[in-house]
Amino acid sequence: MKTRIIIAGPRGKMGTEAVKMVDDEETFEIVACIDRKNGGKTLNDIDGLPDLDVPIFEDPEKCFQEIEADVLIDLTVAEAGFEHTKLALLYGIRPVVGTSGFSKDQIAALEDLSETHGIGCIIAPNFAVGAVLMMQFAKTAAKYLPDVEIIEKHHDQKLDAPSGTAVKTANLLEETRQSKQQGHPDEVEKLKGARGADSDGIHIHSVRLPGLVAHQEVLFGGPGQTLTIKHDSYNRASFMEGVKLSVNKVLDLDKFIYGLENLLE
Amino acid sequence: MKTRIIIAGPRGKMGTEAVKMVDDEETFEIVACIDRKNGGKTLNDIDGLPDLDVPIFEDPEKCFQEIEADVLIDLTVAEAGFEHTKLALLYGIRPVVGTSGFSKDQIAALEDLSETHGIGCIIAPNFAVGAVLMMQFAKTAAKYLPDVEIIEKHHDQKLDAPSGTAVKTANLLEETRQSKQQGHPDEVEKLKGARGADSDGIHIHSVRLPGLVAHQEVLFGGPGQTLTIKHDSYNRASFMEGVKLSVNKVLDLDKFIYGLENLLE
Amino acid sequence: MKTRIIIAGPRGKMGTEAVKMVDDEETFEIVACIDRKNGGKTLNDIDGLPDLDVPIFEDPEKCFQEIEADVLIDLTVAEAGFEHTKLALLYGIRPVVGTSGFSKDQIAALEDLSETHGIGCIIAPNFAVGAVLMMQFAKTAAKYLPDVEIIEKHHDQKLDAPSGTAVKTANLLEETRQSKQQGHPDEVEKLKGARGADSDGIHIHSVRLPGLVAHQEVLFGGPGQTLTIKHDSYNRASFMEGVKLSVNKVLDLDKFIYGLENLLE
Amino acid sequence: MKTRIIIAGPRGKMGTEAVKMVDDEETFEIVACIDRKNGGKTLNDIDGLPDLDVPIFEDPEKCFQEIEADVLIDLTVAEAGFEHTKLALLYGIRPVVGTSGFSKDQIAALEDLSETHGIGCIIAPNFAVGAVLMMQFAKTAAKYLPDVEIIEKHHDQKLDAPSGTAVKTANLLEETRQSKQQGHPDEVEKLKGARGADSDGIHIHSVRLPGLVAHQEVLFGGPGQTLTIKHDSYNRASFMEGVKLSVNKVLDLDKFIYGLENLLE
Repeated sequence: MKTRIIIAGPRGKMGTEAVKMVDDEETFEIVACIDRKNGGKTLNDIDGLPDLDVPIFEDPEKCFQEIEADVLIDLTVAEAGFEHTKLALLYGIRPVVGTSGFSKDQIAALEDLSETHGIGCIIAPNFAVGAVLMMQFAKTAAKYLPDVEIIEKHHDQKLDAPSGTAVKTANLLEETRQSKQQGHPDEVEKLKGARGADSDGIHIHSVRLPGLVAHQEVLFGGPGQTLTIKHDSYNRASFMEGVKLSVNKVLDLDKFIYGLENLLE
Repeated sequence: MKTRIIIAGPRGKMGTEAVKMVDDEETFEIVACIDRKNGGKTLNDIDGLPDLDVPIFEDPEKCFQEIEADVLIDLTVAEAGFEHTKLALLYGIRPVVGTSGFSKDQIAALEDLSETHGIGCIIAPNFAVGAVLMMQFAKTAAKYLPDVEIIEKHHDQKLDAPSGTAVKTANLLEETRQSKQQGHPDEVEKLKGARGADSDGIHIHSVRLPGLVAHQEVLFGGPGQTLTIKHDSYNRASFMEGVKLSVNKVLDLDKFIYGLENLLE
Repeated sequence: MKTRIIIAGPRGKMGTEAVKMVDDEETFEIVACIDRKNGGKTLNDIDGLPDLDVPIFEDPEKCFQEIEADVLIDLTVAEAGFEHTKLALLYGIRPVVGTSGFSKDQIAALEDLSETHGIGCIIAPNFAVGAVLMMQFAKTAAKYLPDVEIIEKHHDQKLDAPSGTAVKTANLLEETRQSKQQGHPDEVEKLKGARGADSDGIHIHSVRLPGLVAHQEVLFGGPGQTLTIKHDSYNRASFMEGVKLSVNKVLDLDKFIYGLENLLE
Repeated sequence: MKTRIIIAGPRGKMGTEAVKMVDDEETFEIVACIDRKNGGKTLNDIDGLPDLDVPIFEDPEKCFQEIEADVLIDLTVAEAGFEHTKLALLYGIRPVVGTSGFSKDQIAALEDLSETHGIGCIIAPNFAVGAVLMMQFAKTAAKYLPDVEIIEKHHDQKLDAPSGTAVKTANLLEETRQSKQQGHPDEVEKLKGARGADSDGIHIHSVRLPGLVAHQEVLFGGPGQTLTIKHDSYNRASFMEGVKLSVNKVLDLDKFIYGLENLLE
């Protein structure tokens, strides 16, 4: 039997990808969508979505009552996502949630609900398997090779530097890496900024060029050797591998997991 | 108190590096060497070794009897290394051994001796921490991203292709990766060999150029993303980090460990 | 005054990009399109094209008679492209042509027409400025560093290996490089294909993975150093820089140029 | 007949490499050395130099009078190098000089002497062919792809950032690149220094890690594509290719050339 899936947020960028992915996957079946408008229509009424005769609900509770489903994929925003996830758990539908903005209280409430009912629930701020593996590997490597710099490269329309992923990576490295100031103690920046940003002695360099998409490398050095862990993300399809993995894992799960890294051993 | 270390094979390429490393490390102290010649001399009698007043023994047993030591670093060949390691364990000196050619029987015998006496012993065919991490990370990544190719690059004096490390990496990947043939089923080599060597569907490419030293990248692909794990080895100093780590770990160890990967969590 | 441009083949993949590019560029103006259907309509009648009130002609001659234009961008197929280009030259409109399949006779005929009338004409099988620069630089480097290998990486739906660009690059290198067999004379492939394809002693390696788009690196080695020239192509927009450059150059040109490399000094 | 070569500065780091290179090269022959000490001895008297029966002179003029030679390779310091070069030109011996510290007046004087006598003379502050090609290619690419950043990576004992080569590369790029500020106009450094150093809008990033040697990449971006030109220098042997090339070229040269880039077309 196929895994029956409800998708919340089908018109968003991530949601649209998810609809396609579920439709393409042989063992998955899309049975309904939750959308804040278009209630009563079907997916094939909506421009830009696959030509599928799948009902759309505006009221999540009504959706969970009327539709038999195994998994909810929620790719909406924090507020709606929290309500959807809570309700799904109550109706015995296992949530896979990509919304990143939950508060600590909201996460605690969902964890409690999931564990009390013994119904698996996965919440992941980042579904890109490759990016999560990069961070996990870097965290391990930093134990043995404490000299490390991060180079992240993005298209030149990006406003903030360093990227959120680079900052998160540096924070993860700090958990395992013996704190140290890198480079020569007497090194001098003849041009200001040359040595990049400093996060607990880890240098971060942000490259911005047209043509680039989203790339990061974590570069470790030790006597006579370097180790590089690099992730290149070309488009949103990269997130769908993580969603697919999470759907498959959540079926056998009876607890709450926050962060894809806790799913990848 | 410093860790007192005996080095076997001080005139070999790896041994010479080890003498330097131990001499440079503040918490280590070199107390004797075992060499198949030069017995009765001291290190400062030997060309190309540091100017140290450290005694050299031809007879390992005599060395272990006369010299108080905590650790034996053995960088000789399999035959001598086996004898040295066995004797060291009997004398309560913890061995760190870089000899790669031990037979299964020899390894079993040393494991038995180490565990019976509760004396730590580390045997590592490859001491390059970065290379071992690369292989471990690749093995984990292959669970989630089964499409993978290996590119290894070496100087053009290397005779065999692929390198031993590339073959070993492919074998490790096969332990976790769902077996599959990669590339398009109808792909055609318009020039023979373009798609590289095939090891259970994993393609391996060997580049040989003057200037290169020893480099390997393991490249994983999934929809919309790639993950690359790359190790560059520039000189023999890269092995010394692993020797140093092993010396520090073996002091607290009461069992036998084969392979640096089992030391790195 | 803006450069007035006619685009032939607006509904093709490249043509659609060209319509967008010309529309976005402040100094360019799209004045008409040539299409083998949709004659009499305007661009805003066609799905997937910008909402522009630009007339479409099925008959190229009628288009050139009725519309005042400076440049024709032709992104059709060889047969139609030849007729369009010939006619444009007769009407004093400078052609920029991306069709790759012209015969030698057709090229000679167009060259003759262009030079006789002193009207600039640019025909380029490859408009990706970065790829053309990569090939030109590699051709120069091969004079000084004759040891070279090519690694090209593409998505795993590509059928042929090596890529056309890799083969073309190898051929260009052979023009300047002193012919030699690379690698150690006694090197042995322990797994068949490890050393890649051989083109006059140059080794070519083809990587195919999901997630990859179109990438090539040309790697030169000499004692103590390597030089790498790498091009990454992420999408069709990369060709538009070359089209834009060609349009600007053709305005001041009074002769025939085949190949973007002859435009880039 | 072999090219007869005098080497000045045989005991320096570069000089020692040059002695080895000339000795290894079949068409070259080392006929004498100029050294500020060891006059009257031969090379095989000196520790660390090849076992060659080649005379050493302290007085350059005496050397040029007594020894028949075609080329002088000078790898000393500016002051001595100037005298050696001047004298060599007067004695009809063609100089290949790696000394970088000549003043403008000294360069002008040597150029005058070389051109007056019609005797070829090559002075190169950087003999690494790969590095010089990287800079030349980057200078050309900047005409067509004005968005560019430089990442240079060196061992962590290096004191200055950015490296001299990175600054020189940026200056070269400014000669051909249309001046522009890169990145998004509203971009914000959330950690200071993340976007690197700024040289006329070109961003330069300096990575310092143990294990690294000397590496630089120049990364160009345009819509849908990136072009990377990368040089990796592993040891001093990299300079010898440029010395060898210069010796071969200077034999047919009747003028003065400053900078290896003017030798590479």
